[in-house]
Amino acid sequence: MLGMRSLPTESQHGAKFVVDRMVEMIKSVIQDAKREGGFSDEAVRGVGLGSPGPLDRSTGAVIETPNLGWRNFPLRDLIANAVGLEAELDNDANAATLGEWWLGAGRGASSLVGLTLGTGIGGGLILDGEVYHGTSDAAGEIGHMTINSTGRKCKCGNYGCLEAYASGPAIAARAVEGLEAGAASLLPDMVSGDFTRITAETVSEAILAGDTYAADVMRETATFLGTGVANLISLLNPELIVVSGGVTRAGDHLFQPLRAEVRKRAFSEAAESCRIVPSELGDMAGVVGAAAMFRIARFGPLTSPSTAA
Amino acid sequence: MLGMRSLPTESQHGAKFVVDRMVEMIKSVIQDAKREGGFSDEAVRGVGLGSPGPLDRSTGAVIETPNLGWRNFPLRDLIANAVGLEAELDNDANAATLGEWWLGAGRGASSLVGLTLGTGIGGGLILDGEVYHGTSDAAGEIGHMTINSTGRKCKCGNYGCLEAYASGPAIAARAVEGLEAGAASLLPDMVSGDFTRITAETVSEAILAGDTYAADVMRETATFLGTGVANLISLLNPELIVVSGGVTRAGDHLFQPLRAEVRKRAFSEAAESCRIVPSELGDMAGVVGAAAMFRIARFGPLTSPSTAA
Repeated sequence: MLGMRSLPTESQHGAKFVVDRMVEMIKSVIQDAKREGGFSDEAVRGVGLGSPGPLDRSTGAVIETPNLGWRNFPLRDLIANAVGLEAELDNDANAATLGEWWLGAGRGASSLVGLTLGTGIGGGLILDGEVYHGTSDAAGEIGHMTINSTGRKCKCGNYGCLEAYASGPAIAARAVEGLEAGAASLLPDMVSGDFTRITAETVSEAILAGDTYAADVMRETATFLGTGVANLISLLNPELIVVSGGVTRAGDHLFQPLRAEVRKRAFSEAAESCRIVPSELGDMAGVVGAAAMFRIARFGPLTSPSTAA
Repeated sequence: MLGMRSLPTESQHGAKFVVDRMVEMIKSVIQDAKREGGFSDEAVRGVGLGSPGPLDRSTGAVIETPNLGWRNFPLRDLIANAVGLEAELDNDANAATLGEWWLGAGRGASSLVGLTLGTGIGGGLILDGEVYHGTSDAAGEIGHMTINSTGRKCKCGNYGCLEAYASGPAIAARAVEGLEAGAASLLPDMVSGDFTRITAETVSEAILAGDTYAADVMRETATFLGTGVANLISLLNPELIVVSGGVTRAGDHLFQPLRAEVRKRAFSEAAESCRIVPSELGDMAGVVGAAAMFRIARFGPLTSPSTAA
């Protein structure tokens, strides 16, 4: 990697502000690349963009992003024109999964599912060595898979979506419910009694500080997540599931009960041939994958080096 | 189609009996094809086999079939040697889905999911124009997708599998539960009071005879099934879902509430671009698909003619 920039979106300043900042960052990364790598202008071929969806890859437009407030927003062409390079747009979760497959935890896997636990739960699918997009670029909406048809209310309006149990805010909400019911925990002290400050990260930190209640919350999270992951495995029989997001800092407190639930629920032939691992690239997976995505779109399939290499 | 034979498996007579019967049927179908189509021996190139799984396509062995009692059974080579032709083996649900894609309800679709409602719930995936097998030939186990993590007990040992709600025996079991609780229905008379004779087909017949209770059971079935189908759609964004099995005879009593539940639960971009239709080939889908599967394995990708053609 020759250059890397990262900034918060600050979408409250409007779409033009966000695009201007992206263009600035792209230009400055290109300067880095030319300086560090000794590249000429001609060596820089284009821009790969990952954005929350739904989006239309053929037109390069973001159809709608509730969090950013964009609607039918021609992100790809705005960036391409401002930077003076060709650009390609794909879903951010697809890009992150592709990044892990190309240079991260998914190297060498022919089929893998990427799962990002954050404000929501994002998913990307690489099947038989290629990103699978579905018929209208909407594949991979793992967060809205129903695991309890009469369960917790989800922000999407339905009941029992995986996201309603295992997203960051859902983990925090479940932690607070127990505290309000009187559970003994380090958590209240960690947020000076202000439960609204509890996040999934706070829960992870409490676990590392030895908090039993927080570990229980994480074990329950892993059980819900394991139900969703078991569904993915029974359906897609992937070689690998790569889990990313801040909550993976809980390490074995998350992964051990997650793997146990999967072994219990998934079709056994499929469970036995699937490994469940944390991300290696973390927050960088998306930009690495966006670069890979541009290369694939313009120059054809990439191969993922084997983990043994 | 130049010839077709169909017989019950009668697996209680043992594996040799079943294989001998299959060989006999294959030979007699080849005779039909040569007579009807005027083909020479050389024109008959091989045998496509669809079997319950899990199985290993590379060795042609069935790993285990609880219903038939086979274990590490070299079905492909036994048939190939006895018939004197090359053979290929794939999962029966994959074969049925491929059949619908090639010549049935799935013609022209780039990505489709086939769902067979019977004793269990089988699934096949065609993604970007090819059967998707997964990393160990186990993809498509839709029946064991969890839709209620603390729900009905499934034969597989887990709780809340789709199959525990919407397979034929599960539909019958739910119908009987209501009758035992005193529901008014034509069903008891249809089976002379012997509830053990109630099957999903009996429920479908009662609906056609105007039975309101049976229609309620089917509506409930459609709701469960819709939850599972919504999961498939959110995850795979297919163009088409093809539903087959005796229970599809319930027609709109099944498909209307099924589509309604999907619209309610699936990621909307994906739901809008997906049609949910009944099978066109019915019981023939598997053999049509097995033939297609042999052709693909030996002679490369087939194209599916557009439905408009």
